[in-house]
Amino acid sequence: MNTSITENCAETEENVGILESNSFNRKNIDKLDADLRQLVERRDALGPCYRLFYQEPLHLVRGCGTRLFDANGVEYLDMYNNIPSIGHSNPVITEAVTRQLQQINTHTRYVHENILDYADALLAKLPAEIDRVMFMCSGSEANDLAIRCAQLYTGGAGIIVTAEAYHGNTALVSGVSPSIGKDVAMSPTMRMIPSPDTYRLGTDEIGEWMCAQISEQIADMRRHGIQFAGVLFDSIFSSDGVIPGEAGFLKPVIDLVHKEEGLYIADEVQPGFCRTGEGFWGFERHGIVPDIVTMGKPMANGIACSAMAVKHDVLDAFAEHNPYFNTFAGNPVAMAAAQAVLNYLDGNNMLEHTRDMGEKLRNEVRKLMAAHPQIGDVRGAGLFTGIEIVQPGTTEPDRPLAVALIEKMRENNVLISLCGPYGNVLKVRPPLVFDATDLDIFISALDISLTAICE
Amino acid sequence: MNTSITENCAETEENVGILESNSFNRKNIDKLDADLRQLVERRDALGPCYRLFYQEPLHLVRGCGTRLFDANGVEYLDMYNNIPSIGHSNPVITEAVTRQLQQINTHTRYVHENILDYADALLAKLPAEIDRVMFMCSGSEANDLAIRCAQLYTGGAGIIVTAEAYHGNTALVSGVSPSIGKDVAMSPTMRMIPSPDTYRLGTDEIGEWMCAQISEQIADMRRHGIQFAGVLFDSIFSSDGVIPGEAGFLKPVIDLVHKEEGLYIADEVQPGFCRTGEGFWGFERHGIVPDIVTMGKPMANGIACSAMAVKHDVLDAFAEHNPYFNTFAGNPVAMAAAQAVLNYLDGNNMLEHTRDMGEKLRNEVRKLMAAHPQIGDVRGAGLFTGIEIVQPGTTEPDRPLAVALIEKMRENNVLISLCGPYGNVLKVRPPLVFDATDLDIFISALDISLTAICE
Repeated sequence: MNTSITENCAETEENVGILESNSFNRKNIDKLDADLRQLVERRDALGPCYRLFYQEPLHLVRGCGTRLFDANGVEYLDMYNNIPSIGHSNPVITEAVTRQLQQINTHTRYVHENILDYADALLAKLPAEIDRVMFMCSGSEANDLAIRCAQLYTGGAGIIVTAEAYHGNTALVSGVSPSIGKDVAMSPTMRMIPSPDTYRLGTDEIGEWMCAQISEQIADMRRHGIQFAGVLFDSIFSSDGVIPGEAGFLKPVIDLVHKEEGLYIADEVQPGFCRTGEGFWGFERHGIVPDIVTMGKPMANGIACSAMAVKHDVLDAFAEHNPYFNTFAGNPVAMAAAQAVLNYLDGNNMLEHTRDMGEKLRNEVRKLMAAHPQIGDVRGAGLFTGIEIVQPGTTEPDRPLAVALIEKMRENNVLISLCGPYGNVLKVRPPLVFDATDLDIFISALDISLTAICE
Repeated sequence: MNTSITENCAETEENVGILESNSFNRKNIDKLDADLRQLVERRDALGPCYRLFYQEPLHLVRGCGTRLFDANGVEYLDMYNNIPSIGHSNPVITEAVTRQLQQINTHTRYVHENILDYADALLAKLPAEIDRVMFMCSGSEANDLAIRCAQLYTGGAGIIVTAEAYHGNTALVSGVSPSIGKDVAMSPTMRMIPSPDTYRLGTDEIGEWMCAQISEQIADMRRHGIQFAGVLFDSIFSSDGVIPGEAGFLKPVIDLVHKEEGLYIADEVQPGFCRTGEGFWGFERHGIVPDIVTMGKPMANGIACSAMAVKHDVLDAFAEHNPYFNTFAGNPVAMAAAQAVLNYLDGNNMLEHTRDMGEKLRNEVRKLMAAHPQIGDVRGAGLFTGIEIVQPGTTEPDRPLAVALIEKMRENNVLISLCGPYGNVLKVRPPLVFDATDLDIFISALDISLTAICE
């Protein structure tokens, strides 16, 4: 299994743009209308690392709630973007940012209430054992620091991730993000376990299976003289194909990690902030307490903001010799935006809303399975859903159909994307303000799109 | 010289907070008034890596232009902060950010004009050979990516920096930032050259001296089987003590680097965006063309924004296998803020203003030298000035006096800081909107403060 996953590892969500099949192919630029063509050509100034979604890239000019509008005034239902979790252009963010910008925006070497108020509010959302929080600008920076803390605390270097993991873009974090691409050098002290593919492996013993995989990799590390430092897992395994698994299945896994004297770094960049509906954090579904928690994306609804929350003794191992300063991180403006998100989530019962709407969404998708046997599995937690597109009657991934489907959905004004080792899992992850009308639009578009392609 | 620098390397600006002598010492918390004490105690939630300036930390609540105001309404002249380069709370930033937040704030996988307009405007400020620009959230992320590009392009790993360099906080970049602290593990493929201390070494042959130092380190790399990848220099050597040197002295140095098949990464996080007054970029003073340019801090006046500009063939070596996505980077809001900064700098002749005000400032400080022989050297470019505090009649650094002086200046309502291998150089780096009234206030405060301490 590892081989096929590795062969396909360039095909996961975070770098879905690499694939000419579902990201814009520069060779097709002549097919674009003149205005769009000119804009896309101008992107050459950004160099070849940047990708655009869709064969006909989207030129978005306005957003509101779950909706996005292109330059021609066409409206799209956004079922993909998790950063604007409380909705595109939510006025509570504009207000909070504007008000703070008018006052002051400095750094953490001066005292300011915003960072203190937000730190308290954030720690109150975390298990009591996790009693320190530091701020960064990106999830990558948070994971970079988390790995260093785990390594200094344990004295080991060895980090275990899943085979399709994506944890960010710094040198250190890229080295533990196999989904970036098979030609990108991975860290020699990193080991991979296969994605916990509950659809193909079954769900009953997935925790036990995962323990066996981890034990095997720790043993391999030992043979290479590498001391185990810990695991870095996204508890909903987003880029592995959105795999919530049974609540609790990670419990024995993390017990094993601790028994082996490693740390559990919970990458909550995607599952955090109510996304999974069953808890404020994804790891809560499993009744486990991480040693380090990293977070980002939806934290301030698009204003650059991330954090590493950590047990104080773990942080002390880093802090003993390392000061840490991050120019923009934790500044009053970022903290005001983050606080506005937290207030919105709490004030609007977004956790409950997310759980309910997520269940409704998956129930409605399941109703389509009879008419559309290409839907092989529907799984998720809260408003994070994966839909396996397969060859009917089998679990064989149908990547070409999945690719065609996201393009067809876009024609039908709904934005989704793909993930998973085979690049065939629809990634459905709308802003949390997703409502019943949005659900109707999505289900109708999915039904119509599948029908149009398959029949 | 290397030894003494290394022994003192924890004492430079970027981690000035480590030193109990000029950052707040938690042991003295009882000396603070009740309100401030409570706030400082609450910072324990942030853990021990965070530092506060001053024995009595500043609780700042408002900023305007070059002025900052604390919770008691006390006004300070900010002669330290380079991030709010067009002034604290400049309304052009508030307007640009507010307007964009009301429209849309997404990521780079959709087409948006802001990033294209800004990329064009930024590249127009750079030498023609540098024809690609990518965006990040922090200077650390920009330097992290720059080093990886240099390594992939050259096939080497070896990076040379100065002994007091600070280039950021990721794992990779920390490893080439010796000023972080002598107990922080440096990269085994990094080599240091001493700070080009023109005050103590003389200025005439400093380029030649630096070439010899670099040759020595390249030879040492070769002995260790490390291939040279390049140098990472801040052209004004900020944390080395603000060392502009004679314009042009870096030319033979960079010629040597290229002859040795290494790249020159210009860390313009501090000297960029008109700071040095003699060119939009610090490296322009030297008539040299970098292979990679990194930038950050003042780029968007405090909104998280950084970039790596690069020659296309250097980027291609990275792009061949590596996609790159950075969630918040280059988003329409960050780009709107960055564009507003650029427009302000251009529209208000800030380069000329910076050059003129910087010269006036240094001239006025030099006039104080007769009355205050503790001022050993005054040097700088534009509004980036270093003032050596020494034992009169010698070049011996007087660190205790320098520390006392920044505290006394704060009592006199002027904020500055320290840098350099001996921690004795006053770092004077106001927002670029610094004017003649500000200059009078600064000179008067410096005069009064020196008198109060020394006489």
